[in-house]
Amino acid sequence: MVEKIDKQSGRAFILKKNQFLKVIDPLGGQVCDMVLFNAKDTREKISAGKTMDFEESILITKSNFLWSNRSRKMMEIIEDTNGRNDILLAPCSPDTFRIMYNNPEYHPSCFENLYKNLASFNIAPDDVPTAFNIFMNVQFNEKGKLSVLKPLSKAGDFILFKPEFDMIVGLTACSAEDSNGGTFKPIHYEVLDKL
Amino acid sequence: MVEKIDKQSGRAFILKKNQFLKVIDPLGGQVCDMVLFNAKDTREKISAGKTMDFEESILITKSNFLWSNRSRKMMEIIEDTNGRNDILLAPCSPDTFRIMYNNPEYHPSCFENLYKNLASFNIAPDDVPTAFNIFMNVQFNEKGKLSVLKPLSKAGDFILFKPEFDMIVGLTACSAEDSNGGTFKPIHYEVLDKL
Repeated sequence: MVEKIDKQSGRAFILKKNQFLKVIDPLGGQVCDMVLFNAKDTREKISAGKTMDFEESILITKSNFLWSNRSRKMMEIIEDTNGRNDILLAPCSPDTFRIMYNNPEYHPSCFENLYKNLASFNIAPDDVPTAFNIFMNVQFNEKGKLSVLKPLSKAGDFILFKPEFDMIVGLTACSAEDSNGGTFKPIHYEVLDKL
Repeated sequence: MVEKIDKQSGRAFILKKNQFLKVIDPLGGQVCDMVLFNAKDTREKISAGKTMDFEESILITKSNFLWSNRSRKMMEIIEDTNGRNDILLAPCSPDTFRIMYNNPEYHPSCFENLYKNLASFNIAPDDVPTAFNIFMNVQFNEKGKLSVLKPLSKAGDFILFKPEFDMIVGLTACSAEDSNGGTFKPIHYEVLDKL
């Protein structure tokens, strides 16, 4: 069954070892931040630093694994029809909009949408790690300068994950203007028992 | 007074807001992993993802800031005579040597040297974040492929930090062969009350 994450919101749920997770960009051009925690011990979680270290790459796509802070594989990416994701940048937060967008007003954010949904799993705001930012188009040049561009994903693009153990998954439909080409759209996902 | 960190070891200490920290590569070609925690609340700590986000760069050097997971500036880099550091890769750990070097034997690691020294500040192994890897020479190409090369630092190269508040600092003389040109050398540091 396709689950729908409304624009600028989020969701958290259990994914079992023998299941698969499909994350879909239904309209195109929409980022989804994903965080992962070991369901049996939430102090083990996705680590961007470990993932880039073991995969020897900044760009993570089909056939790469997402790794934990305890140096264990968490997810294998078994399909990625768009192919451009980011694992460098932290989830957008109220501070992002205050500091980078010079906006002191309330603004929805991935950080808030993650920690509010993860609270039911006893995960605190300080425990939210840097996410795997699905469909996010972060470009870098040879001097390391980063630019956040409009996602390259088209309507219906998806990424498919195979978990290595039971985990808690947090997903968002990203709330940042610059990351999503100035618009806010939903994200869809499916938990599949088989392919 | 110059403090000396022996090869393949580490240290943790308090740095006060009005002090400065100078980290020196005394012989050249040696990496130093650095982690930072708010001395008053160790759940606030250095965040690679927040640092790259706010500094809009993979490469962090003079005039950049290191940021916390709570979106606060932690350190300003006010001098950097070498200029090449890394903030992508997690500290080398026993798993690094087992998985990437195919070495199942005991091997000293930055991860162990950080958590053992940080234990006296009630910081647990799971709380050790991705470090700022001073003098580490991680190159990337346009496809995001990462290569760990010999450091470019020469004997006496140093980096100078100005903290924004009181913090706990963990430092290592890195233990990984590939990161240090195949040799293991000491790291020196100084806590200065004025420049």
